[in-house]
Amino acid sequence: MNAEQVVAAISSEENITEVYLVACGGSLVDMYPTKYFLESEAEKIVTGLYTANEFVHATPKRLNPNSLVIVCSHGGNTPESVHAAKRAKEYGAYTIGLTHNKEAALIEHSDHVFLYEWGADSDVKNNPMAIILEIASEVLKTVEGYEHYEDFRDGIQKANGIIKKAEELVAERAKVFADRYQKEELFYILSSGASYGHAYGFAICSLMEMQWLHAASIHSGEYFHGPFEVTNKETPFILLVNEGRTRALDERAKEFLAKYAEKVEIVDAKELGINTISDTVVEFFNPVLFYSVMCVYREALANVRNHPLETRRYMGKVAY
Amino acid sequence: MNAEQVVAAISSEENITEVYLVACGGSLVDMYPTKYFLESEAEKIVTGLYTANEFVHATPKRLNPNSLVIVCSHGGNTPESVHAAKRAKEYGAYTIGLTHNKEAALIEHSDHVFLYEWGADSDVKNNPMAIILEIASEVLKTVEGYEHYEDFRDGIQKANGIIKKAEELVAERAKVFADRYQKEELFYILSSGASYGHAYGFAICSLMEMQWLHAASIHSGEYFHGPFEVTNKETPFILLVNEGRTRALDERAKEFLAKYAEKVEIVDAKELGINTISDTVVEFFNPVLFYSVMCVYREALANVRNHPLETRRYMGKVAY
Repeated sequence: MNAEQVVAAISSEENITEVYLVACGGSLVDMYPTKYFLESEAEKIVTGLYTANEFVHATPKRLNPNSLVIVCSHGGNTPESVHAAKRAKEYGAYTIGLTHNKEAALIEHSDHVFLYEWGADSDVKNNPMAIILEIASEVLKTVEGYEHYEDFRDGIQKANGIIKKAEELVAERAKVFADRYQKEELFYILSSGASYGHAYGFAICSLMEMQWLHAASIHSGEYFHGPFEVTNKETPFILLVNEGRTRALDERAKEFLAKYAEKVEIVDAKELGINTISDTVVEFFNPVLFYSVMCVYREALANVRNHPLETRRYMGKVAY
Repeated sequence: MNAEQVVAAISSEENITEVYLVACGGSLVDMYPTKYFLESEAEKIVTGLYTANEFVHATPKRLNPNSLVIVCSHGGNTPESVHAAKRAKEYGAYTIGLTHNKEAALIEHSDHVFLYEWGADSDVKNNPMAIILEIASEVLKTVEGYEHYEDFRDGIQKANGIIKKAEELVAERAKVFADRYQKEELFYILSSGASYGHAYGFAICSLMEMQWLHAASIHSGEYFHGPFEVTNKETPFILLVNEGRTRALDERAKEFLAKYAEKVEIVDAKELGINTISDTVVEFFNPVLFYSVMCVYREALANVRNHPLETRRYMGKVAY
């Protein structure tokens, strides 16, 4: 079943009142756009985003049999995520599990499973970020109506084509970036709106986990209320400029950085061609573009630093 | 009027369905415990936490005349926060403004104003973090009942006494910390549950803004899903260990850090005496304790680094 059919099947048996998004690390990052989408667009549906172990230990009192709990785990055996799905079932909620592993323990606690595609050759609409957004748009349409539903569906269909072109556009820039910043030990990643989660994701997954580099995400709106005091000509910043309503926040950061910083990489979704998606929904697709485009950057950085993206010292290697 | 009276007055005219928490930087940090509290304890009330400019540019569709929008700004003239209160009024919502400035522009757009106390001599129950928590507990009790309401009120009354003792307990430790880490250029701050916002706050306000040091917050639950790969014997970590349901998450990080890091400062709310507050509500008061205790740490650091906490290069000094 696709997202539309799954939501139709659930809705035939219960009236969905909450959509909980529960995962860890990179999988949680893939859920942030949906949290932003539902917090922005829904008048009835309630949403909550949880790192899995907090959901397990401090389960929200609201969780109930009309809740839809979406749990994502790439390998499908992350203990906290599996436990979270189990906890959701104990509360009688409907669970959707997303994983790339057809033998995953997560499957046992999932009422429905999306075995998603992964890798550079897959269409992004079949990757977890887009699947979760699509589920949310179906829930929204079904429960309370969603006036931009057709535009949203169209956005999902267009995303992959836009991204393939954008990846080509940044290939050379990413190499220049990697050459220029190969000796840096710390990066700040700024963004806003639906993409803030990917600023966080690039920091914790691509830089901290995969490159052992220091990194932090900063919301473009929050930057001016504390963080900007570290700005100087030596500190590198990567700014993911959204198209859509929060663009003004990113542009304000861009203007400030142009004055007071020198090591600044701007990745602008508008310049990279996202505008073929309708203005009514384009902002929700920025992070889908940014994820793919920033993979080009991280690969260039890994190559020039001679630090393969797969290298770990703790994850999956020691007990924790 | 106090929080109880204000909520009673609002509730006599409308049925509160949402509590939006809107601010920037340090004031937003003070709202995080309430977001956690309502997401955890409420079965009906919906909550949302927004940096003010995102609330202005991407106003949630749910915002309506039954929404309570709490806006906090210490100086009361932060343009984005004032604008957010104005926006909330345009949607017909009820606005509560919190500020330390009786001439604040925020007041013009606030249906009710709390002119809060500030400074080391004030009782923490009269500071914004506790006032906002108190408002939320009154809303929860009034709208849907809150079984631990009396314990919560008791917690608010006890917090200041606990904190005064804790500040004494850490005074010497904070000096040792400051001496030991005075040459460091980057710190990671870990916590979970109600206190995650204060891990973020110590990073962006106390270290980045006030000390021009690099810093990032990491959720203790997320630490194991990427960030922990930067752990080594050279990188400093500050871990705020909560008492309550998410303690297990912090203790897991503590155990890992004990093995693989060497520069680790543990600040443990339980050891600092928070347990005189009832188990049913204690977790929500961890951040009230951590804020005051971490002020002792940051002051010690400022002294030994000879970098006064008030020094700014951009905030209030240049256009942005």
